Amino acid sequence: KAIDELTFGIAEIEKAGFDHFMLKEIFEQPEAIENSMRGRALPNEGQVRLGGIREHIDRLRNAKRIIICACGTSWHSGLVGEYLIEEYARIPVEVEYASEFRYRHPILSKDDVVIAISQSGETADTLAAIREAKAKGALVLGICNVVGSSIARETDCGIYTHAGPEIGVASTKAFTAQVTVLVLLALALSQKRTLSDEQTKDIIQDLYQLPKKVQEILNLNEEIFEMAKVFKDARNFLYLGRGFNFPVALEGALKLKEISYIHAEGYPAAEMKHGPIALIDENMPVVFIANKDSSYQKIISNIEEVRSRKGRVIVIASEGDNDIDKLAEFVIHIPDAMMPLMPLLTVIPLQLLAYHIAVLRGCDVDQPRNLAKSVTVE
Amino acid sequence: KAIDELTFGIAEIEKAGFDHFMLKEIFEQPEAIENSMRGRALPNEGQVRLGGIREHIDRLRNAKRIIICACGTSWHSGLVGEYLIEEYARIPVEVEYASEFRYRHPILSKDDVVIAISQSGETADTLAAIREAKAKGALVLGICNVVGSSIARETDCGIYTHAGPEIGVASTKAFTAQVTVLVLLALALSQKRTLSDEQTKDIIQDLYQLPKKVQEILNLNEEIFEMAKVFKDARNFLYLGRGFNFPVALEGALKLKEISYIHAEGYPAAEMKHGPIALIDENMPVVFIANKDSSYQKIISNIEEVRSRKGRVIVIASEGDNDIDKLAEFVIHIPDAMMPLMPLLTVIPLQLLAYHIAVLRGCDVDQPRNLAKSVTVE
Repeated sequence: KAIDELTFGIAEIEKAGFDHFMLKEIFEQPEAIENSMRGRALPNEGQVRLGGIREHIDRLRNAKRIIICACGTSWHSGLVGEYLIEEYARIPVEVEYASEFRYRHPILSKDDVVIAISQSGETADTLAAIREAKAKGALVLGICNVVGSSIARETDCGIYTHAGPEIGVASTKAFTAQVTVLVLLALALSQKRTLSDEQTKDIIQDLYQLPKKVQEILNLNEEIFEMAKVFKDARNFLYLGRGFNFPVALEGALKLKEISYIHAEGYPAAEMKHGPIALIDENMPVVFIANKDSSYQKIISNIEEVRSRKGRVIVIASEGDNDIDKLAEFVIHIPDAMMPLMPLLTVIPLQLLAYHIAVLRGCDVDQPRNLAKSVTVE
Repeated sequence: KAIDELTFGIAEIEKAGFDHFMLKEIFEQPEAIENSMRGRALPNEGQVRLGGIREHIDRLRNAKRIIICACGTSWHSGLVGEYLIEEYARIPVEVEYASEFRYRHPILSKDDVVIAISQSGETADTLAAIREAKAKGALVLGICNVVGSSIARETDCGIYTHAGPEIGVASTKAFTAQVTVLVLLALALSQKRTLSDEQTKDIIQDLYQLPKKVQEILNLNEEIFEMAKVFKDARNFLYLGRGFNFPVALEGALKLKEISYIHAEGYPAAEMKHGPIALIDENMPVVFIANKDSSYQKIISNIEEVRSRKGRVIVIASEGDNDIDKLAEFVIHIPDAMMPLMPLLTVIPLQLLAYHIAVLRGCDVDQPRNLAKSVTVE
C-alpha cells in the first residue's frame, strides 16, 4: 500500500490567532481560491490545464448529459456548477442529491458523465452514487479536497481543490475552492468549442481578480459584525437570490442553520410569491442577493414586496449602487465580477453573517451540535 | 372568438357544508383523482388514451430529454413527475423553477420536450418559460386545470386535470389531480416501449384503487385534528421523505407555511445529516413519511437520530406497521399502494395537518396573508 505524504504542516491546523477555525478558514479564502486555480488557469494563453482529467477530456466534452452528485454544501456548489457548465459549455447538467440518485434506478449510459463533489472524499451517499454510476458505464469525475480519499481513489478522473485542511464543521473555504474548480472545469469543457481563446482569457483574467476582491469583502468584517448584533435574536431567516446567486442563497441559509440553529431557508427569489411570502412579518429578516445584473429590476420588486409586508430587509449589493440603500435596513456593498463568478464573492458576507450571529448566541461554531465534519454513514 | 362553456355549476363553487373551501377541496380529492383518470386509463386493456397529446405521441416518446417547468405546488408535482417518467419511461427529466429556467439561456432543441404545469394556466413565469421553449423549437405540453387558460392556449398539446374549480389559495386537489395526470402521461410514454400491457394494467388497476384509499385517509380527519391540537403552537417544522415521498415532504411543508405561517421546511431525509439536524431539539416537530418500501430501514435510522436529539417525531406509516409506533409521538397509518403512486396518498394527511393547525391558530386558511391564488406577475 502506497503512503500518501501530508502536504500541510502543523501550523496550518492551528487557529493562527483567530477565535475559531471557521473564522480562520473564512479568511483563508483568497488563498484557497488562488491555490485552486494556480498553474491551471493560464491568463495569457486563455487556456485551462487540468492534469487530472486530461486523459478523458474528449469524452467529457462530448458528454450528452452531466449529472452532479453531492450532499450538503457540496450540493450547493454543484448547483453553481450546473449554471456554469450550461452557460459556458452548453452541456445539459442535472444536480442530484447523492442519497436520492442512488436509490432510483438512475438513467445512465457511457455517454453520460457523473461528477461527484465532496470535501472529505468520504461522504457515504456520494461514494455509493459513484459506484452505481460506474456500474452503469458512466465516466465518473471526482472533485475532492482530501488527497487519497475514497472518492479520489474510486473515480475515473478528478480535480483536487487546494483549500488546505478544513477543520470547522460548517464548510466555507471548501465551498469557494469547489466553485473555483467548477469554473475551471466549465472552461476546460468549453475551450475550442463554445468559447474562443479570447473569451476564455477574459474570464480567466476576471477570475484572477477574485482573491483581491474576496479580501476587500473580508475587510467588511466589522460592518457585518455590527449587523449581526442587530439580528442575533431572530428566530427565522429567509435568503433569496436569482440565477447564479440562487445556490448562494441556499448556502447562506445552510450556514446560519448549521452553526446558529436559527431556522433559515433559501429560495429562488421569484418563488417567494408562491408560498414563503406568507411567512413575512415584522419579525422576519430577509437577505437578498441583489448585485447589478440582468435580473436586478426583478429583485428590486421582490424587495419592495417584502418591505410592504414589513419584513426586515438585508441586501448584498454592488459597490456604488447607493440607490438600493433606501430600500433596506442594512446593505453590504461588495465588488462586482462577471455574473458567473459572482457566487465566489456573494457567499463571503453570508458566511461572516452566520459566523458572527452564532458566536453572539454563544454557539460552538467549530463543533455545532448534532453535526459531523464528514458524513460517513448513510 | 370562440366561447368556452363553463363545465361546472354554481353549487360546486360553494362550500357545501364545509367550514372552508380548502377543507372541501381536500375532501374532493377522491373525485378529482377519479375524474382526472376516467376515460383515459383503461384497466382492462392496460392502456392509456390521452386525446390531447395523441398527435404528438411519437415525438414525446422519442424525447431526448424532458424539462418540467413550474412554480410552487405545481413545481412539487413536477418533481413527482420526474420520478414517475424516469422510473417508467426511462427518459431523463429535469425539473426547473420556471423563473430560473427562462433567464439562463436554456439548452433546448427540437428533440426536447418542455412540460409546463400550472393550476390556473396563467402563472406568469411559467407562461414566459413556455414562450422561450417554443422559440427554441422544443415541443411544449401543458398540464392545467383551467380550460382555455393562457398556458392551455399557447402550448402545442396538453392534458387537463379535472379537479374542478379550486378556490382555496393553498392548492390541494389541483396537486393530486396533477400527479394523477403525470402518472397517466408516464404510462403513455412507456406503453409498447418500456412497459408491457400487463405491467401497465397492473399499475392502472392500482391507480383505480386510489380514490377509495384516499377516502380511507380522509376518514382519519378526527385523529389528525387531535394531533394538530398538540402541535399548533410549534414555531418550526421539518418534513422528511425519500424517493417518491421527497416531493411530498416539500409539499407538506409548503402547505403549513402558506396557511399557518409556521416556518416549515422539507428535505430529502438523508440530507438531514448535512445541516438541518443542527436545528433539532425538544421544540422541533419532525414529520417523517415512512411507508414500507426499499428505503424503510434508512428512514427508521433517520427517525432514531431525531429521537436521540429529543426532536418530536410524527410519522406517516403503512397500515399494519405497528412496530413503528414506539418510535414516534404520533403515527398516522395509511393504506399502501405501489411506490410510484404513494404521493397521492401520503400528501393527504399532511394537507389535513396543515389545515387544522392553521384553523386552530385562527388563520384565514382560504385567503392566507400576502398570497394570491395565481401569480400573474413576474
